[in-house]
Amino acid sequence: MIKIGIAGYGNLGKGLVKAIGKNDDMEAVVIFTRRDPASLKTDDADIPVARLSDAKQWTDKIDVLVLCGGSATDLPEQGPDLAKLFDTVDSYDTHARIPEYFAAVDQSARDTGHLSLISSGWDPGLFSVMRVLFSSVLPDGQEHTFWGTGVSQGHSDAIRRIPGVIDARQYTVPVQEALEAARTRQNIELTTRQKHRRDCYVAAEEHADKKAIEQAIVSMPNYFADYDTTVTFISEKAMRENHSRLPHGGSVIRRGRTSKNSGQMMEFGLQLESNPEFTASVLAAYARAVYRLKKEGKTGAVSVFDIPVGALSAADSESLRKTML
Amino acid sequence: MIKIGIAGYGNLGKGLVKAIGKNDDMEAVVIFTRRDPASLKTDDADIPVARLSDAKQWTDKIDVLVLCGGSATDLPEQGPDLAKLFDTVDSYDTHARIPEYFAAVDQSARDTGHLSLISSGWDPGLFSVMRVLFSSVLPDGQEHTFWGTGVSQGHSDAIRRIPGVIDARQYTVPVQEALEAARTRQNIELTTRQKHRRDCYVAAEEHADKKAIEQAIVSMPNYFADYDTTVTFISEKAMRENHSRLPHGGSVIRRGRTSKNSGQMMEFGLQLESNPEFTASVLAAYARAVYRLKKEGKTGAVSVFDIPVGALSAADSESLRKTML
Repeated sequence: MIKIGIAGYGNLGKGLVKAIGKNDDMEAVVIFTRRDPASLKTDDADIPVARLSDAKQWTDKIDVLVLCGGSATDLPEQGPDLAKLFDTVDSYDTHARIPEYFAAVDQSARDTGHLSLISSGWDPGLFSVMRVLFSSVLPDGQEHTFWGTGVSQGHSDAIRRIPGVIDARQYTVPVQEALEAARTRQNIELTTRQKHRRDCYVAAEEHADKKAIEQAIVSMPNYFADYDTTVTFISEKAMRENHSRLPHGGSVIRRGRTSKNSGQMMEFGLQLESNPEFTASVLAAYARAVYRLKKEGKTGAVSVFDIPVGALSAADSESLRKTML
Repeated sequence: MIKIGIAGYGNLGKGLVKAIGKNDDMEAVVIFTRRDPASLKTDDADIPVARLSDAKQWTDKIDVLVLCGGSATDLPEQGPDLAKLFDTVDSYDTHARIPEYFAAVDQSARDTGHLSLISSGWDPGLFSVMRVLFSSVLPDGQEHTFWGTGVSQGHSDAIRRIPGVIDARQYTVPVQEALEAARTRQNIELTTRQKHRRDCYVAAEEHADKKAIEQAIVSMPNYFADYDTTVTFISEKAMRENHSRLPHGGSVIRRGRTSKNSGQMMEFGLQLESNPEFTASVLAAYARAVYRLKKEGKTGAVSVFDIPVGALSAADSESLRKTML
């Protein structure tokens, strides 16, 4: 059994407990929290809860620690710190700062002989894998990434700040015509805006001026002004019942030429009913790979680009070749 | 520059010359043939042509030899033989015999310190990679592979053997309803037949009995009898003009659950205007990976499951992390 530690128990940590439950060769051995462990209610009472500050007492009980904190403030500190104590996997997703984050984690992991995989999940993560695969196979081509249908937390929050709004949910929706153009046409320009529209569901106060709220949304610079945006007012009850989930998804599409007359199209798509549970499932598979590659002697920081797909699987190489090739 | 040798100059070998032309870090240094080299007309007169039986005179001039022969008779012999002389890549696709083929190539490569990647291409190859990736991320799920729209040579040949038929082309076409069911529904049974229909284009002799030909096709056991099959008669000219290409494609779809209420769907799809050119492009990318991993000291036989995606790319790890993660 691969012994997994979980650092942080938000949506991602909760999803990871479920993901581990789906993999027969893994067990969750501890949940670390910055809160008082006694105050943390978990879905599975059998998994011990401990203070993150006591993590070093667990170094011989954990094979891989999965960091389930956020990229804004948690991971920049926890990633390099915890890579000194454990082999780790995280989902660091601040694209622009990945090089410096990688360098910091790499230093910690190398100094202490650990192996740390950064920026796993689906974007960054599986989408990144596909971008590299697709561009390697079709170097003469063009790539488009679409996101959705999925909830954007940032855009939902922006609507909630408008006076008179009680609650809001914003869905980013890929535009079908743009998807089709990406699949079938060479050399096209598609901006993020042309590729997506924004559907907003809003619960407003009883006597709120709905016209004014709608106007405030659709004209909001950066967030909505340049998109096709729809606003639908619903009750708080309908919000709870129909919009409490965190679906997401998207597509990476590359169209390229292998000769003057031969166009080729590669596509990877996800339709997720729960974004955090899926992300956690990706982290679980990469935790297995870290466990395997560490046993082979690999140390330092790595990314999804360094992982052979066979290392993600619970099956061994021979049976993979026999059954999956 | 990575110096690529090409063993065999059929559709796949021709596609490989084109694929190498799309990659700035590769050059085609020789085409090996079993025919008289002087008799072989190639698309690029700058690439020397040599006898396959003289291959051992080229061992110091080639980094990776790509085997472009067929799986029925060429590769079972060439794979193990040429792995004694070169680092190799092939597209061996007789699924049932992969374990014994792997063992034979592995023996040759290990004995002589070479690295050989078997069964690359798209199925086996990229589809296999996706099956392993998808089942590792969503272990509680179900997978479906669809093929097409694409030409099936075996089915086209079966039609050509019917009296009165001059030429024929059979397209395997995925059934849209089955595709949609695979994407959206859990625990469904879909047989290959339910998933595909067969569209046939036939050029018949002038006074042939078209009704009889059609009946012979749609009732042909194993090939057509159990499928929805359409037959369209066209002229030889229309056959030449509209059906001379070798398109193909397909999808690998996995739907799984990460918890009781959360269904998740992963999909990989290809739409190819030229099957052999695309397959050759995949082989070229894997040839680069073989070149890289050999430099790191790896020897023996490997499959696509053993290759980190970063090794397929012309870019180095640092720039991949910076631009693609």
